[in-house]
Amino acid sequence: MTRVAVVGGGIIGLAIAAELLRRGADVTVHDPAPAGTDGAWHVAAGMLAPGGESAFEYPHLVRLLEASYERWPGFVAALGDVGYDTTGTLSLALTADDVAEAAREWRHQKLTPLTGSQVRDREPAVSPRVRAGALAATEYQVDPRKVVAALRALLAERLVPQRVTDLFDLDADTVVVAAGCGTAALTGLPIRPVKGQVLRLRGEPGLLRHVIDGVADGRHVYLVPRADGEVVVGATQEERTDGAATAGGVHDLLRAALDLIPGLAEHELTEITVGHRPGTPDNGPLLGRLDERTVVAAGHFRNGILLAPITARLIADLVLTGSADPLLEAFAPGRFR
Amino acid sequence: MTRVAVVGGGIIGLAIAAELLRRGADVTVHDPAPAGTDGAWHVAAGMLAPGGESAFEYPHLVRLLEASYERWPGFVAALGDVGYDTTGTLSLALTADDVAEAAREWRHQKLTPLTGSQVRDREPAVSPRVRAGALAATEYQVDPRKVVAALRALLAERLVPQRVTDLFDLDADTVVVAAGCGTAALTGLPIRPVKGQVLRLRGEPGLLRHVIDGVADGRHVYLVPRADGEVVVGATQEERTDGAATAGGVHDLLRAALDLIPGLAEHELTEITVGHRPGTPDNGPLLGRLDERTVVAAGHFRNGILLAPITARLIADLVLTGSADPLLEAFAPGRFR
Repeated sequence: MTRVAVVGGGIIGLAIAAELLRRGADVTVHDPAPAGTDGAWHVAAGMLAPGGESAFEYPHLVRLLEASYERWPGFVAALGDVGYDTTGTLSLALTADDVAEAAREWRHQKLTPLTGSQVRDREPAVSPRVRAGALAATEYQVDPRKVVAALRALLAERLVPQRVTDLFDLDADTVVVAAGCGTAALTGLPIRPVKGQVLRLRGEPGLLRHVIDGVADGRHVYLVPRADGEVVVGATQEERTDGAATAGGVHDLLRAALDLIPGLAEHELTEITVGHRPGTPDNGPLLGRLDERTVVAAGHFRNGILLAPITARLIADLVLTGSADPLLEAFAPGRFR
Repeated sequence: MTRVAVVGGGIIGLAIAAELLRRGADVTVHDPAPAGTDGAWHVAAGMLAPGGESAFEYPHLVRLLEASYERWPGFVAALGDVGYDTTGTLSLALTADDVAEAAREWRHQKLTPLTGSQVRDREPAVSPRVRAGALAATEYQVDPRKVVAALRALLAERLVPQRVTDLFDLDADTVVVAAGCGTAALTGLPIRPVKGQVLRLRGEPGLLRHVIDGVADGRHVYLVPRADGEVVVGATQEERTDGAATAGGVHDLLRAALDLIPGLAEHELTEITVGHRPGTPDNGPLLGRLDERTVVAAGHFRNGILLAPITARLIADLVLTGSADPLLEAFAPGRFR
């Protein structure tokens, strides 16, 4: 039986390990904080939107995102209730300038623009100031914290609380490095942390029906309402490595959120979290073989949640059968050399 | 030797107890959390501004505030470094409407209005959008957390970790109830909690020289810069008893702060605290004898820090000599019956 050591207990490492386990491999997951919260998944809102902003000039990534999106129903079926919600996403634009910007994306995604009052028919909490919107009916959400908890439960005794600093310390036939930003130090690959500040609000459930993906006076914001009344508000995107929540970051998120959905003002601000997305030079993931023994699955940037199911399948195939799916070609770890 | 039990270990109770101790009384301070942080003092910014907004129609309160203000230099002399800072306060008004509102107070306080550029000469971090200001050179600041820590150190072995629910449980000649909002349950006096949300930011020291007392698009905000780079941003004023920080409250504070001082955007948001000011029907304190054995010193609303020294002296006089200073007349605990 193949012995595989996965380095990194975030959503990517856990999804790969769960797939390997299901297919009979002898797998362990090595993470210094196996029940910790320091991964990008802990901050992520969990929007499952394959047609997002990265889609314009990167067709290979679009194919990967769409292939992963299609695997989500099967992926969650094995996990139980992880907040997978198919209500859809409402895109909102506040001002005329915001409409001009958003309309470009709506055309690209072949979405029908809605007037402000059509938007408010679907989502009554939307501000009367919102000029236009569009329904992205197939953009769903999942709760990444629940996904990680479910994957951890599946893998329970396979989790090893260990900080790996040298891949040669691992006694395994194959090593899969899925350590997010930590992958850079382990492999020398060009992955940089891209800071994001995210808020969590809490109020009576039911204020929002849809995920909101909006732009308000040029500020982009998403609002992801959970069934229990939590609303995730994200996210800043900053080329910084520090972990500080800032006055400006929190202000910009709250202002955009309240401009679009004024009723959130009474919600409790329960959490301010700062995470770091693992970015690469082209912000596409690094997926594939690094050497005889080492496979990499990292650098998922803003798409780590959405890409977890396809990453798990492609990497498990590679590890267990040696066959590299054509989807992997554009994401070779060595492509920046 | 008179045995005095003070109920409440916030700044008022501690200041009274320290004064009683200094004058030879056998004093104890009863508080369930003698090293706790649940008092209004923990949230308070510590502005020492006797000419503030309550001054317009309440001359008795003005006299009390001014008498306490004059006692601060002597009060801090016994406490060591408690962040007492006499740089002064800069009042700022962003828009023409804000100037109209602020000018009324400036006239009342006989302050000379400054143009925007005169303001920025004194405080370079002020936004170029700020239209006018005024220097309140005699409005100082102190750090209430340092004051409470110093008073606790003075009173060390006099602090009794005890929740008092019935004043008759206390074995003392005189009981002083200085329990802030908790005074209502102990005495039946009409004290209500008035919620306030306050932020603490942190950055390189030196961005701000003065305390800022500003109004920006109708939103009132104060910014109190400490020597170590902390900036206290306050405060909402809500007739609510809950302890939740809200999206709307935090947003309004940050927006007003950043409108006035844009450079605060890069400061770390280190703390969001919610406190409750002890308010009374006229928002003046309750100071005086309740019955033979019981004295009250509570309901200081927004002025608890400023009023601590005079409260300590007046209550200590009352307890030790039986003489009631004329300053106390307007603040009799029974005046609402």
